[in-house]
Amino acid sequence: MNMDFNDDLKATAGVPTPVTGLERLRQEIDQTDRQLVALLAQRRGLVMEVAEVKKERGLPTHHPAREEDLISSRRAQAQEAGLDPDYIEDLFRTVMRNSRVGQLDTLGRRSVRPGARVLIVGGRGSMGRLFARCFTQSDYLVRILDVEDWPQVAELASGIDLALLAVPIQVSPSVALQLGPHLPPNCVLCDITSLKKEPLEAMLRAHAGPVTGLHPLFGPGTVSMDKQIVVVSPGRDGAACQWLLDQLAVWGNVLVEAEAGEHDRTMGIVQALRHFATFAFGEYLCGRQVPISRTLEVSSPIYRLELGMVGRLFAQDPALYAEIIFATPERRVLLRDFIESLNRHLEMVDRGDKQAFINQFQKVAAWFGPFSEQAMRESNFLIEKLVHRF
Amino acid sequence: MNMDFNDDLKATAGVPTPVTGLERLRQEIDQTDRQLVALLAQRRGLVMEVAEVKKERGLPTHHPAREEDLISSRRAQAQEAGLDPDYIEDLFRTVMRNSRVGQLDTLGRRSVRPGARVLIVGGRGSMGRLFARCFTQSDYLVRILDVEDWPQVAELASGIDLALLAVPIQVSPSVALQLGPHLPPNCVLCDITSLKKEPLEAMLRAHAGPVTGLHPLFGPGTVSMDKQIVVVSPGRDGAACQWLLDQLAVWGNVLVEAEAGEHDRTMGIVQALRHFATFAFGEYLCGRQVPISRTLEVSSPIYRLELGMVGRLFAQDPALYAEIIFATPERRVLLRDFIESLNRHLEMVDRGDKQAFINQFQKVAAWFGPFSEQAMRESNFLIEKLVHRF
Repeated sequence: MNMDFNDDLKATAGVPTPVTGLERLRQEIDQTDRQLVALLAQRRGLVMEVAEVKKERGLPTHHPAREEDLISSRRAQAQEAGLDPDYIEDLFRTVMRNSRVGQLDTLGRRSVRPGARVLIVGGRGSMGRLFARCFTQSDYLVRILDVEDWPQVAELASGIDLALLAVPIQVSPSVALQLGPHLPPNCVLCDITSLKKEPLEAMLRAHAGPVTGLHPLFGPGTVSMDKQIVVVSPGRDGAACQWLLDQLAVWGNVLVEAEAGEHDRTMGIVQALRHFATFAFGEYLCGRQVPISRTLEVSSPIYRLELGMVGRLFAQDPALYAEIIFATPERRVLLRDFIESLNRHLEMVDRGDKQAFINQFQKVAAWFGPFSEQAMRESNFLIEKLVHRF
Repeated sequence: MNMDFNDDLKATAGVPTPVTGLERLRQEIDQTDRQLVALLAQRRGLVMEVAEVKKERGLPTHHPAREEDLISSRRAQAQEAGLDPDYIEDLFRTVMRNSRVGQLDTLGRRSVRPGARVLIVGGRGSMGRLFARCFTQSDYLVRILDVEDWPQVAELASGIDLALLAVPIQVSPSVALQLGPHLPPNCVLCDITSLKKEPLEAMLRAHAGPVTGLHPLFGPGTVSMDKQIVVVSPGRDGAACQWLLDQLAVWGNVLVEAEAGEHDRTMGIVQALRHFATFAFGEYLCGRQVPISRTLEVSSPIYRLELGMVGRLFAQDPALYAEIIFATPERRVLLRDFIESLNRHLEMVDRGDKQAFINQFQKVAAWFGPFSEQAMRESNFLIEKLVHRF
């Protein structure tokens, strides 16, 4: 390597006081860091030019093969230069993430169906506002129907191409039924609630045209839709709904299809059971008045991470969690089963029966299979991030 | 910005075929990325020079004020250049972490007491080997005493300055008592088990000289001791133990003092309860044969993170967890209380009593206080990492 980036510094660094070796080295490091930021800014400029070209040609933001090539080349270069390839990969993953998000600012405004009319029902709620903003930025004509606008429903629904229900779970089916008679025959009707079976059935009853259920797995606080998952539960006339799904993909979302019943069963585990278990753990810590901050001082990053998962639950809206946890009778049975499964460990606990614990542990480990090793790798990566960040 | 890093490229890029706009831009991005890696290699060279200077002068690796200055300057530059300052901070935190680890390769070999004799009891176990390697690299004379070496104990213990017990929790006290009579009067005796009260009492009975309890909060697989926490439970003659603590700090460890009883109570929560709750959750998923990989497909990164915490437990040694979870009668009471606290939620679950849930939720949220918001920020940062990494 014979690049000499320090010429600038040498020319201008006519500092009057003599500096020690350490200070001189630190100045050189600062100069290198300034050049790094300047290069990153230059890179960002190029990326935005790429976005313009992609926009003209209708190309997608995310180009996985290109990203993997780029990572491989930089890893190889790192190896030659005596740097840890994992370190360089980590940095470039962050750089590429920033590129994708930057490109989405440009490309995410692209419209699959410019000028189409979109009615956001519950459009003044937090998720409603998020979708209203996205549709507006992509040249859709957005109308809002919230509680106080029902007298104008016929007018608001006339000529629309899409009605998106962004209302709480418990009112979603009844809102669909109220809205149905006002929808144009070819209008797409969709919802974004975290249950799919009941709302989808209501939408299919309420409207004879195209229907699809959506469950975006992100909250209103999301910074970017880049790589965020949206579960799609098909209703009726998928071909007529396709433009909506294409638009979600343009915004960066990753679409995963799941039949409504399967979706709800899976979410019973992914959301209801998990949130309940987290709630119960937090409630127990509170009941025992465990000194949280002291436990954080004398513990490893992994505990910080796990306690953080508990803490973050309680920074959120209890009503939303109550709806998710107690959504259906099946979920209540699931939670009861879970509590009962804990009771089955009581005897083992009371006797301190280590062998029984080891036997059960091994059974579960075998069942998890290769996922455990993968989980280990992923969480080690995150723990590493946590250690050096906080 | 008028740096033109592309002169090289322009001079050599006499490619014969005409390239499209997109290809040309991608070549320019690749060139920028090559320059980024070259700069990072240059920076690494400077950092290693800094390490040499620090080693000569006995300065520490970690210089928090310098790191924060550096971050502030780069954030300001990012802002001027139209880049997201959080993005640049994130990159530079990774760069600095790599610098610290690199410097530790040099500085971590510094010896607080070169030539001192260290006996690692259980030195062929995984933690024993880790410490043996560290002491050896720092110019200590390391001897190993494992199960098969007890006939030579008198010889191995003669003239030693430190005996470090790296044996399983359940045998730690008896090993201390066996070893005690062979120790020189001024030898430091310490252990590294995850309980402190009983082993410390045994060490104090076994040896009349300096004694300290240590609990390193990292496993044998740790890549670097940089910023890893070691809990120190003082035993006897802290002044005579100080060189050992100083050596841990040189290796990058962060020392936190906790009286043995307090340590054990806190670890009941941090380790026993938490691991048990994680075990019980995994055991329930296994019992219900929940399709793990499908749940991962249709779920948010936060679920992936939480399920990863469960999965990673089962990639580890069940015997170690059995020892931690069932270590003391107090811990067994703690676990029983936890299970009983879950039973108290049964009625609420069966009735689907959302209001009772909301009331309890709010009580816990108030108790967590500002920690919840902090947990939210930290876990959002990690979720962001998880989304763009996997």
